[in-house]
Order: sequence, then structure tokens, then C-alpha cells
Amino acid sequence: MPMPMPEAQQLAERVRDAMWAGDRASRGLGMQVLEVGPGRAVLSMTVREDMLNGHDICHGGLITTLADSAFAFACNSYNEVSVAAGFSCDLLAPGRLGDVLTATCTELSKGGRTGLYDALVTNQRGERIAVFRGRSYTFKGKPLVAL
Amino acid sequence: MPMPMPEAQQLAERVRDAMWAGDRASRGLGMQVLEVGPGRAVLSMTVREDMLNGHDICHGGLITTLADSAFAFACNSYNEVSVAAGFSCDLLAPGRLGDVLTATCTELSKGGRTGLYDALVTNQRGERIAVFRGRSYTFKGKPLVAL
Amino acid sequence: MPMPMPEAQQLAERVRDAMWAGDRASRGLGMQVLEVGPGRAVLSMTVREDMLNGHDICHGGLITTLADSAFAFACNSYNEVSVAAGFSCDLLAPGRLGDVLTATCTELSKGGRTGLYDALVTNQRGERIAVFRGRSYTFKGKPLVAL
Amino acid sequence: MPMPMPEAQQLAERVRDAMWAGDRASRGLGMQVLEVGPGRAVLSMTVREDMLNGHDICHGGLITTLADSAFAFACNSYNEVSVAAGFSCDLLAPGRLGDVLTATCTELSKGGRTGLYDALVTNQRGERIAVFRGRSYTFKGKPLVAL
Repeated sequence: MPMPMPEAQQLAERVRDAMWAGDRASRGLGMQVLEVGPGRAVLSMTVREDMLNGHDICHGGLITTLADSAFAFACNSYNEVSVAAGFSCDLLAPGRLGDVLTATCTELSKGGRTGLYDALVTNQRGERIAVFRGRSYTFKGKPLVAL
Repeated sequence: MPMPMPEAQQLAERVRDAMWAGDRASRGLGMQVLEVGPGRAVLSMTVREDMLNGHDICHGGLITTLADSAFAFACNSYNEVSVAAGFSCDLLAPGRLGDVLTATCTELSKGGRTGLYDALVTNQRGERIAVFRGRSYTFKGKPLVAL
Repeated sequence: MPMPMPEAQQLAERVRDAMWAGDRASRGLGMQVLEVGPGRAVLSMTVREDMLNGHDICHGGLITTLADSAFAFACNSYNEVSVAAGFSCDLLAPGRLGDVLTATCTELSKGGRTGLYDALVTNQRGERIAVFRGRSYTFKGKPLVAL
Repeated sequence: MPMPMPEAQQLAERVRDAMWAGDRASRGLGMQVLEVGPGRAVLSMTVREDMLNGHDICHGGLITTLADSAFAFACNSYNEVSVAAGFSCDLLAPGRLGDVLTATCTELSKGGRTGLYDALVTNQRGERIAVFRGRSYTFKGKPLVAL
């Protein structure tokens, strides 16, 4: 992969700052943005007591929420407002109380208005917890941050 | 659709009680279980401030979490431990602060160990917010509640 | 559902004729277009010897191809060139040699450029063989047939 | 990735031979099995005139059929009968008449009865045409070939 141009990297970071300021959901779930770049993002989340379901494992919807947040930072990184049109998530192994989950999202494809992104969720031992594939829709010419 | 036999209905309700007691995630998100029955469930959730993302709309992952909870109650309703193997969710319209979202989950198909479920998420005006399709895996002979 | 306006119905039929003339794949697989209308289509296909796989049942890809054809006629019915961005297909029961499979595709949602369609594939006994969900992308202002 | 043990490789090849003998669909579409191994397979298909749709590009269902065939050889490679429970396919670029498409399928995850596989379809220039994700279901203790 070629090194992203400094401008593209700086733009991704400015978008991250603007999005993060408004993203009460991701903050409320204790997520952290570890990395962003053009078309990519890495976020983490620790499984809390209030994330467990009736089988005493992390609610699959919340694992998906982590992946979806990584997807949001990745697909908005070019400073054009982009929303999730949809996604799929396959759950491979359970998340347990106290596990630190990390979602790494990368871009598979990007056309004019649509993009396809993969996210892999792993735990602190590097075990694969879930794979996520998201489809984005971009509103052309609508920036997130003023330049 | 034939009326479910009272026993099957009672079983679904007993499983709901047991699952709900442990489901800290769904409770923490303020969900309510409106209905359960054999292979089906209806849950609601009001969009709170802490569910909004950087675009100021309900985080798509949390809409999915609502649908996934409905799916969990539906696919476990026969009192055999069932987990989500995966799901897809297509987001059709945004959820706004204060919206009351309702996820109605029904069974499309059920074999020995695998099942397929659809959930529709609507808002208080009956507008479609999301469609969700979940794939369950059942651990045969492993009950949730002792009979 | 309101009755489609005659113009919309006629347009769907004109698009069907134009698409069908070029659709060597669907014709080669022996498909028939049973119905079209605004946002919907019904196609059938008989399972032939050359559609069987190594398990001696209809190749799942070809069941998907039938559903995808129904999706194509449905999403192009408004006379704006639309392509499949992607789809998912869940296989519920096998198709056997000689089975007559019917795919009924309906529109779940349609925005400016993107649409969501469901197709149900059944056999001649009305048994559900597969469920398909397709995502379309429309090239605005690009008609299939001149009016 | 560790080198597969010779026995596992030989088994995958024996299963390939048995499946290929019965797979009239893949043969009829002119596919070729380029490689198989434990949990993986590579197949190719040349886009023929009778694979084109009404937009004059390769029918998306047939691109999916190629990927699904690669998936079938990959998930059956351990000599336990496995079927596709479902899959999703995202179409990234069109296949044109004469293009040689190659589907490379690898295993993401394998549990007792369920598996998850990714396939990437590229053309003769290495351009990505489609990404496919398949979910398999295995009938335990049911071999494809007698040992």
C-alpha cells in the first residue's frame, strides 16, 4: 500500500476530530479511536458488564456497533459525508467481560458514491471475534469539516 | 398462521423472563419486550442522546442491536440455546432523537440447528427504518430454562 | 398496494422487452418472465440436468441467478439503468431435477440512486427454496428505452 | 500459513475429482478447477456470449455461481459433505465478453458444523470484479469419498 499523502492523512484526522466530538454513541460505549487514515480506521472497546446479553457474552449488536463505528471513521475519512447503507456481520467467537475488542476497518472498493469496507474484530489475544462488511453511500460535495 | 399452542406460548414467555433477567445490554439501552411467541418477538427502544453518532442520528449499530435483541428472543423461544451466527442490516431511514423504534422479528425458516429470521425496524410513525436478516445456530438438547 | 398507473405498467413492460432481447444469460438458462410491474417481477426456471452440482441438486449459484434476474427486471422497471451492487441469498431447501422454480421480486425501498429488493424463490409445490435480498444502484437520467 | 499435510492435500484432490465428476453446472459453464487444498480452491471461467445480460455485461448471478463453485470445493475439501447455507456477493466491476474470471476462495473460520469462506473474483488484468462471502453447513460423519 502506498504511504498516504500527508494532506490525506491530515484530512482524515480532522474529520475524526469533528466526528468524534459528535459521536455520543461511540463515546458512551467507551470506544477509543486508535488510528485513522484515508479509507481506514482502528477502534477499540472494552466489554463492560452492561454489554452482556442473556447468554452472558457480549451482545452481538454491540460488537457490530464497534465495527460500524470503525467503518464510519473509515468511509468519512475523505471529508465527504458518508453513511452506512447497510452491513453484514458474522460472529465467530464470543466476547467476554473485560475483553478488549479491536475493530480494524479497511477499504475494499470505492466508486463515486458507493464504497465497500471490511472490518475485522479481534480480542486482546488476537483471536477473531467477528468479520463485518459495510456498504457506504456518499453525498458528493458535502464536506464534514470546512477547509 | 395457526394460533400457537398455549404450551409453546408459555414456553416462549418463560424463556423471555430468563433471558431478560440476564440481558444487561438490552436493558441498559432501555429496550422493552412488547411481545414474544414461538419464533417471534417484538421489542422497542427510544433513541436517546447517548445513541446519536457524529451525523446526529441514531448509530446504525444500535438500530442493529435492537433488531438483534428481537432476533435473540425469537430464536431462543423454543427453549434451546441459540446464538446469532451472523446477520445483515440495511438502513433505510435515520432514527432521530426521541424516536420510538420497534423491531418485529419473525421466523423465515427453521431446520435442525440453523434458523433464518427477519426483523423490520419501524419508528412511531410506522416508517421503515431498517431491515435485518439473522442466521441462528442452535445447540440441540441444551435448554435455557429447566422444565 | 395501490394499482400501478397504466403508464408505469406499460413502461415496465417496454423495459422488460428491451432487457429480455439482450439477456442471453437468462434466456440460455430457460427462464421465463411471468410478470413485471413497477418495482416488481416474477420469473421462472426449470431445473435442468446441466444445472446440477456435485451433490446432485441445483447449483445454489443458479438459484441465485434466477433471483438476480427477477431483481434486474424489478429494479430497472422505471426505465432508469440500474445495476446490482450486491445481494445476499440464503438457501432453505434444495432444487431438484425437473423442479420449476419461481422467483418473485418486490421492492422494499427506493431512494434516489439506491434501492433494496427482496426475492423469494419457491418450487412448484410452493415450498420456499431461497430468499434473496438485492441492492441496486441507479444511474440517474439514463433511460433503457427511448420514450 | 503452514504447508498442508500431504494427506490433507491428497484428500482435497480426491474430493475435487468426485465432486467435479458430478458437477454438471460448473462444467457446463466452462469452469476449470485450477487449485484445491484444505479449505481452499481456485476456479476460473471465461465470460461467454450466453453469460451476458441485458446491459451487455456478465450476469451477476453467474459471477456469483463461479464464486459459489470455488466455495463448494473449498468447504468440502475435508471430505465431509458440506452445503452452502447462504452467501453474499458484492459486485465491484463488470465482467466483459471474453474476460477470464478467477475466483480464489479461502477459509475464514471453521467450527464443528459451520464455516465461513471468502472468495475474491478477479479478471485477467487482476482487477477485482466481486467479493463473495459464503456460509457452509457440514453434515458430520458423512464423507463424499470412501477412504
